[in-house]
Amino acid sequence: MTQPLVLTLSCTDRPGITARVTTFLFERGGNILEAQQFNDRASDAFFMRVEFDPGDTSRETIRAEFAPLADEYSMDWKLALRDRPRRVLIMVSKFDHCLADLLYRWRIGELPMEPVAIVSNHPREAIEHTHLGDIPFLHLPITRETKAQQEAQVRTIAEDTDAELIVLARYMQILSDEQAAHFAGRCINIHHSFLPGFKGAKPYHQAYERGVKMIGASAHYVTADLDEGPIIHQDAESIGHADTPDELVRKGRDIESRVLAEAVRLHLEERVLLNGQRTVVFSG
Amino acid sequence: MTQPLVLTLSCTDRPGITARVTTFLFERGGNILEAQQFNDRASDAFFMRVEFDPGDTSRETIRAEFAPLADEYSMDWKLALRDRPRRVLIMVSKFDHCLADLLYRWRIGELPMEPVAIVSNHPREAIEHTHLGDIPFLHLPITRETKAQQEAQVRTIAEDTDAELIVLARYMQILSDEQAAHFAGRCINIHHSFLPGFKGAKPYHQAYERGVKMIGASAHYVTADLDEGPIIHQDAESIGHADTPDELVRKGRDIESRVLAEAVRLHLEERVLLNGQRTVVFSG
Amino acid sequence: MTQPLVLTLSCTDRPGITARVTTFLFERGGNILEAQQFNDRASDAFFMRVEFDPGDTSRETIRAEFAPLADEYSMDWKLALRDRPRRVLIMVSKFDHCLADLLYRWRIGELPMEPVAIVSNHPREAIEHTHLGDIPFLHLPITRETKAQQEAQVRTIAEDTDAELIVLARYMQILSDEQAAHFAGRCINIHHSFLPGFKGAKPYHQAYERGVKMIGASAHYVTADLDEGPIIHQDAESIGHADTPDELVRKGRDIESRVLAEAVRLHLEERVLLNGQRTVVFSG
Amino acid sequence: MTQPLVLTLSCTDRPGITARVTTFLFERGGNILEAQQFNDRASDAFFMRVEFDPGDTSRETIRAEFAPLADEYSMDWKLALRDRPRRVLIMVSKFDHCLADLLYRWRIGELPMEPVAIVSNHPREAIEHTHLGDIPFLHLPITRETKAQQEAQVRTIAEDTDAELIVLARYMQILSDEQAAHFAGRCINIHHSFLPGFKGAKPYHQAYERGVKMIGASAHYVTADLDEGPIIHQDAESIGHADTPDELVRKGRDIESRVLAEAVRLHLEERVLLNGQRTVVFSG
Repeated sequence: MTQPLVLTLSCTDRPGITARVTTFLFERGGNILEAQQFNDRASDAFFMRVEFDPGDTSRETIRAEFAPLADEYSMDWKLALRDRPRRVLIMVSKFDHCLADLLYRWRIGELPMEPVAIVSNHPREAIEHTHLGDIPFLHLPITRETKAQQEAQVRTIAEDTDAELIVLARYMQILSDEQAAHFAGRCINIHHSFLPGFKGAKPYHQAYERGVKMIGASAHYVTADLDEGPIIHQDAESIGHADTPDELVRKGRDIESRVLAEAVRLHLEERVLLNGQRTVVFSG
Repeated sequence: MTQPLVLTLSCTDRPGITARVTTFLFERGGNILEAQQFNDRASDAFFMRVEFDPGDTSRETIRAEFAPLADEYSMDWKLALRDRPRRVLIMVSKFDHCLADLLYRWRIGELPMEPVAIVSNHPREAIEHTHLGDIPFLHLPITRETKAQQEAQVRTIAEDTDAELIVLARYMQILSDEQAAHFAGRCINIHHSFLPGFKGAKPYHQAYERGVKMIGASAHYVTADLDEGPIIHQDAESIGHADTPDELVRKGRDIESRVLAEAVRLHLEERVLLNGQRTVVFSG
Repeated sequence: MTQPLVLTLSCTDRPGITARVTTFLFERGGNILEAQQFNDRASDAFFMRVEFDPGDTSRETIRAEFAPLADEYSMDWKLALRDRPRRVLIMVSKFDHCLADLLYRWRIGELPMEPVAIVSNHPREAIEHTHLGDIPFLHLPITRETKAQQEAQVRTIAEDTDAELIVLARYMQILSDEQAAHFAGRCINIHHSFLPGFKGAKPYHQAYERGVKMIGASAHYVTADLDEGPIIHQDAESIGHADTPDELVRKGRDIESRVLAEAVRLHLEERVLLNGQRTVVFSG
Repeated sequence: MTQPLVLTLSCTDRPGITARVTTFLFERGGNILEAQQFNDRASDAFFMRVEFDPGDTSRETIRAEFAPLADEYSMDWKLALRDRPRRVLIMVSKFDHCLADLLYRWRIGELPMEPVAIVSNHPREAIEHTHLGDIPFLHLPITRETKAQQEAQVRTIAEDTDAELIVLARYMQILSDEQAAHFAGRCINIHHSFLPGFKGAKPYHQAYERGVKMIGASAHYVTADLDEGPIIHQDAESIGHADTPDELVRKGRDIESRVLAEAVRLHLEERVLLNGQRTVVFSG
């Protein structure tokens, strides 16, 4: 049986793109299972995601034959196996609620990923509540002096494990510009506030001091400009005057876990396309 | 300048439909502004909505030339001017919050409609807070004995005014099966509960008695089977133990108003397609 | 029949305050209808709101006899008639959705207020969709040169009308520090973003540019420090990549209207107490 | 150092109750940390929850001296140590997301409980993804014939372990009337729909068939009348036409986990009082 494929693409918008792409697939026996497009009239850009059953045509043939069409439109494009689990490197610090949540979702088949390693700047004992199973755990402590070296180690691990996605699951360390650039477009961070409010450290304490009536969390791609990367998903919840900073931290854990899990799912399913500093999310 | 068109269609799903439709539009100079499709794999049905600039091709030409293609696929389809205000008949009872809300949204240009008449079973004074302006108001009282006659009057008014959509904005009267059938697919009701819970009368009091922790509202197409019509939109909000039935009614007004307005907007913009007892909503 | 009263108070927290206050009321024949308290352990402050039926004791007697107790605890306190409509001055600019919403809620008895005047820097025609009825409308244009003078006029109007609350219902003008100080604690503004994000002008356009996935609105007391006043209420909604700035403005109107109306209701019902830069909201 | 206590009570509403209770505590050196009350005017009932530091007075003294006051008002009341972990028996079937979520929250100190046993009608392997640690796991299969016997075993386990709360964390078995009565007021179930809609089996499939636009979950006390017990907490989320029953199940897991965890937290913190078929929830 053939395996479903996912074609994602973006390019300058021109009349006829959808017709060209869908006719291309039809002529090769492809059957569309799900398709979305977005014509961004502000930037004159076009975005498309198609899940399809390729019939008797191999992925290699489709790729080879689509290339000229893609060139003609100067497309950024990708043709992926829909159901192949993506290889994911997860980085964590002392707070493991996002990690535990991601691993549970993976184990019950909710997230199509294969965790290749867990990297932490704290020892294994710091996250003793989380059931890691056979996933390799690497303790890579970091100090100001060793930062460059530690980041190089992370890059090596990512390379050795063929990691396709790096998830900062409350990693609590700021990546250097070089590291952010190295993982551009394939590194997702969860920030524990409703960006752009409360950037930086201790956002729940900032929220408490300011007296806001809602808190939130934001999952975004990591860029050199801290907390300014393209946002994938956000959520927020009401709070009240009786909520102490500790209560905000507790309530925030739930929001962080589900926002990060949703962003990771969307990325793994090839549903997120970059549109400058923003994202196009074909949420299905 | 040509006016944008909206093509909506549904049919049995078959490979190549998207290619055929979009190629058809491209060959006639059409430029897609927004497009969505849904391949319902459970029922093997296909749904599509395309907003496009038809270029130099007239709507009549497109309609005439699309007909054979539509026949080939046994499509249910519609080709409409995107920006022509739809003619809307609004029916109301004593509670006018949904009516006031719809009219305000219309006046500021948020809803692409033209209210052709307001029909109520109560006299004009019952809704004195609402600014009707020049919209004709018709008082059509109803009793068990006069129901058939009153409904015939409503049908005549709908016909005389060329009403395309009937909105039951808290009309509080149950349409007869005949009336529901007559307006099938073009009559939207707002039910003041989160269907399927609390059907029938006084849903907020039912909710209070049951002790639920959320209340909601549901906008749906009217069918003979009361409160069982295809749902277009729903929303809900948290409530607490201190909320009396009166408080629920107050909080409910907000939910009802915004749920109905959203459903009406979606319908007016041709974003709602029927899928058996359910709806496909291309929310944009 | 006696009229229910509302006692609100705040002071340094000390053991026995609740006992003292409730015993005081009981000994004078008062019957509590609703009561809330908040012991802020971070700042060691105490806040209380009691709705009660005073029985045969007059408000004046209660006030006179409560004063020594209040002095003993150095309380900030207020004793008000619960059901007396508060006199409200509403200021508006060209966008009247919040004004229309507030007035509709007032007319159907949802907001216990008496609108004493509408002040706008634009002429009456700018908000032609809103049904003002008999409420005096005052057009007070403002320029950089006339700002001081116009603000003095507003203060005079507020004084002449005995306005207890000033509502900036999308007034779109920044009050001078003097004006903000003059109306301290009784002037509510609606900011069309989820503060602290997107302060300043055109927040929806800022939100669009940043690519956030939620937008919100914040109702807060006006202080000299623009957009930094104590927040009373906030709400937010999800948006998507297809939402243009115009769509955000449209969606935002709903959030703004309901957030401002809720904040005004809470204030009118004496449910909001100041706690430094934050608020205590006894939402009932 | 003295340990904080929680006093909860309900009785017929009469003037002066708050004064009597708070004066009682003050006279014994108690210092209120948090207090809520609810005067239910519809049923003329009074509910109160007070967290307090008892100073030098022992819990036993307070209990003994409060009894006459409680008798005078015919109170239902309870005086508990605030911070003592409650002993909890968790029952589960094949779906372990709620169980995994509860145990994680317990391990990081979010839920003040002590899990005394996990009981399942399926063997340990059915929930292999969940890290049980040292918590005893008991496999008690159930058939129509052995139901009475199995339920007796559960009662014995509950008794032997001094379980104070029974949590049905997607247990998927209907308790007999006798069992429901036995655990009345101390058995919480999570129903995977927004009650009162979609009672009974496979609620997500029912929701899909009906075409609703939101799904939800309800945590409630178990009573003999299935799915009709007093509701403690509910939440809901929007869904769309593209969501298959499997997607609803996936999205539902998140809602179920957080609704059940919140209900359990509220119960463990003595924040839920029964008010006939409804609950009073002092959510803090």
